Amino acid sequence: MRHETGRRFIKRLRVKLPDAPGWLGQFATRLGDLGVRFGEIHTVHIGKRDRIRDLDVLLPSAAALEQALEAIRAMAGVELLGITDVVRERHLGGKVEMTPRVKVETVDDLGIVYTPGVASICLEIHQNPELALTYTGIQNTVAIVTNGTAVLGLGDIGPVAGMPVMEGKALLFHLLAGISGIPILLDVRDPEEIIAAVKAIAPTFGAIKLEDIKAPECFEIEARLDALLDIPVMHDDQHGTATVVLAALLSIARQKELDLAHAEVGIVGLGAAGAGIHQLLSAYGVQTIHGADINPLMSERFASKGGQPTDLAGVMARSSIVIATTGVPGLIKPAQVRPGQVILALSNPNPEIEPDEALAAGASFAADGKGVNNAMAFPGLFKGALAARARTINNEMKIAAAQTIARNALEGDLTPNILDRAVHAEIACAVEAAAWASGVARSRGDESHSHYQKENPA
Amino acid sequence: MRHETGRRFIKRLRVKLPDAPGWLGQFATRLGDLGVRFGEIHTVHIGKRDRIRDLDVLLPSAAALEQALEAIRAMAGVELLGITDVVRERHLGGKVEMTPRVKVETVDDLGIVYTPGVASICLEIHQNPELALTYTGIQNTVAIVTNGTAVLGLGDIGPVAGMPVMEGKALLFHLLAGISGIPILLDVRDPEEIIAAVKAIAPTFGAIKLEDIKAPECFEIEARLDALLDIPVMHDDQHGTATVVLAALLSIARQKELDLAHAEVGIVGLGAAGAGIHQLLSAYGVQTIHGADINPLMSERFASKGGQPTDLAGVMARSSIVIATTGVPGLIKPAQVRPGQVILALSNPNPEIEPDEALAAGASFAADGKGVNNAMAFPGLFKGALAARARTINNEMKIAAAQTIARNALEGDLTPNILDRAVHAEIACAVEAAAWASGVARSRGDESHSHYQKENPA
Repeated sequence: MRHETGRRFIKRLRVKLPDAPGWLGQFATRLGDLGVRFGEIHTVHIGKRDRIRDLDVLLPSAAALEQALEAIRAMAGVELLGITDVVRERHLGGKVEMTPRVKVETVDDLGIVYTPGVASICLEIHQNPELALTYTGIQNTVAIVTNGTAVLGLGDIGPVAGMPVMEGKALLFHLLAGISGIPILLDVRDPEEIIAAVKAIAPTFGAIKLEDIKAPECFEIEARLDALLDIPVMHDDQHGTATVVLAALLSIARQKELDLAHAEVGIVGLGAAGAGIHQLLSAYGVQTIHGADINPLMSERFASKGGQPTDLAGVMARSSIVIATTGVPGLIKPAQVRPGQVILALSNPNPEIEPDEALAAGASFAADGKGVNNAMAFPGLFKGALAARARTINNEMKIAAAQTIARNALEGDLTPNILDRAVHAEIACAVEAAAWASGVARSRGDESHSHYQKENPA
Repeated sequence: MRHETGRRFIKRLRVKLPDAPGWLGQFATRLGDLGVRFGEIHTVHIGKRDRIRDLDVLLPSAAALEQALEAIRAMAGVELLGITDVVRERHLGGKVEMTPRVKVETVDDLGIVYTPGVASICLEIHQNPELALTYTGIQNTVAIVTNGTAVLGLGDIGPVAGMPVMEGKALLFHLLAGISGIPILLDVRDPEEIIAAVKAIAPTFGAIKLEDIKAPECFEIEARLDALLDIPVMHDDQHGTATVVLAALLSIARQKELDLAHAEVGIVGLGAAGAGIHQLLSAYGVQTIHGADINPLMSERFASKGGQPTDLAGVMARSSIVIATTGVPGLIKPAQVRPGQVILALSNPNPEIEPDEALAAGASFAADGKGVNNAMAFPGLFKGALAARARTINNEMKIAAAQTIARNALEGDLTPNILDRAVHAEIACAVEAAAWASGVARSRGDESHSHYQKENPA
């Protein structure tokens, strides 16, 4: 396991430059020569002869930063005013918070949202529990549960160190689908204790998203909780990833005119992501799936679910489409790539093989994990499941999501703009319809409790 | 147990009245004659000769509403356009939601708050867990935990029916103190299971507020969790209530020039609220506290903590200050009131004795629970505890809060304006100082991880 987060070392430089043609170009060229890429650039002050700008710079290492700073200090006419750690700054105090949805400006308001007014709502729900769907946020709230045993590519860093990821998911839930996502950090590792804790807090939520829990425990935890609770329980590392991978394959199949169902697909790495991909591709109709994992337990599980276990060389030799989710950078050597192969090397931040290398070795298509982000799938999957009051998130719903993602993919890309809320809404709609069509949706019960009664004078 | 929420039956009437002098007065007088009180009144449209207003009306019963509607329909020149159930309307979809604290507008932003940028923050926290205080919201997040066994005065209505109250608390946490409050509904009743569930999810939070869990289980659950976890665990029904009661007594003592420490205080009802009041008044220095409860277990517990157990008649006969928290409306008869007694009959929505009755029977001061709202205390108590990183919320902190509340009480009232954020901030500050002075605060550790580095050209 490598901790290479340096591939993206982001700083914000505040720089005063003469406000005349040529200076910005000269500045950017000088830094570009040192390997610096630029992100957002904002003007923060315009003086008589100067302009102060904040420039986000992306650097390969801390040493590169030092070099760049030296170069800036050496440039006549340019003044470096400050350096901000953009990533740290954006995380200060956390990225999400629980905020009111209703205004409370007067003591009368308080009596409506709190005691004594609230008591009548409690009693209505007590008498008709379905009304909790109407008068609480439960049906729009998703727990984001982790024990921190498999966070990103970082491994077992524990629940608290995993919190920035959980807050990021909560942020994306609201930003992309208007869902209230609640991080829940679990201080337990035993599957029985995890199941007991999640079961105990389940009434709070309309759905449970398991996150960054390591394999093989994640399989049993998800399966048992989903069966135990009448709300959906989905492990995102398995199924969110699988949904986006299927979407990417559908996009590739369209571009390359491949027949996905009859392609020989190979999966390298049969942990959470690999197992989820296997399950969803099988459900989609892919008939032959080869798989390799260094852990024999994972290979056995794969075989028990209908997969063809082999080793890395076997996958590379037999598959026209290879999907790698091992977390091992550089695992796939260019010599193993066969001409015409499609290769998705998805481990973040560093793939099993760089797309450029794979293409140079003869692959017809290659991508890494940057364009295959499960944030493309999970907001719409959960929004659709919540809207349908689905008991579970099944393969039909994931396939509907994948097809919607692929249909909206940007020209020449595998997926749509991840920040396009309209696409997430369309995914949610397709997922909701699939829930109904596959029999896991529920009606909303009594709709007669309207809060507004129009007066119709006789 | 009575479910009298009808004391405050709130509707919003949309009415078209001629926009000329006298009409509003006539309208309000007619409804006033029928027992209707008015809350907020807003103009929603001004026509050529008419004005459309939304008028919030507070009614004693559904029958009173029907009477009022009949009267309006019979008024020439007045048109009733609609009736809104204000309480239901305000609860639609829930009262709180988890929202982003940082803007994400571009794909570059996404790379900062989510993968890959987030990984560096996770690693920093993994290497130095104290940094979770800086780079996550944990230290500003409080769980609001209930199993719904003692919700308001409504009793054991279960966790889901209790959600509107928990959302109300979360709303107030943010509104009054900027705290992110997370409702957690527990589907368990056994104290061991409650303790296990709260312990499992504890890393998510900077503090735990237990809410509406019935006595006597609430005592053991709170005590064990507070000892087990290194964050504060406070049962609001005990200590939030006790803090506001102490504040009210301090206000009364100042107005009446009473010596609280040497007064004979009586507590009627020794459940969660009564036990909390007993604990805090003892800690404050009140030397004699009489107490009565129909449950002998509660009386025994009270005696074991230094109280003087007796019955209702005994409390009324011996105490110069009586505090009732039984949930039994009308329990105290006017004949039991002694001349000069101070009586706080706090059960909501209907007190043990109406203040008017108590005063008529000779009490020197009487109040019900409307002015003694624990939302006056809990936001500042938790904010101060979080700021101090306190291990617990001890009596010194509660007393500091009570003194601050009393000091800010409005002239002629027992407590300040509950919506005054400045008062809540002052309470938090006093609580933080008390945590330091009493040795339960912790330093924040390494502060060197600044996100901004000022460039100082040599």
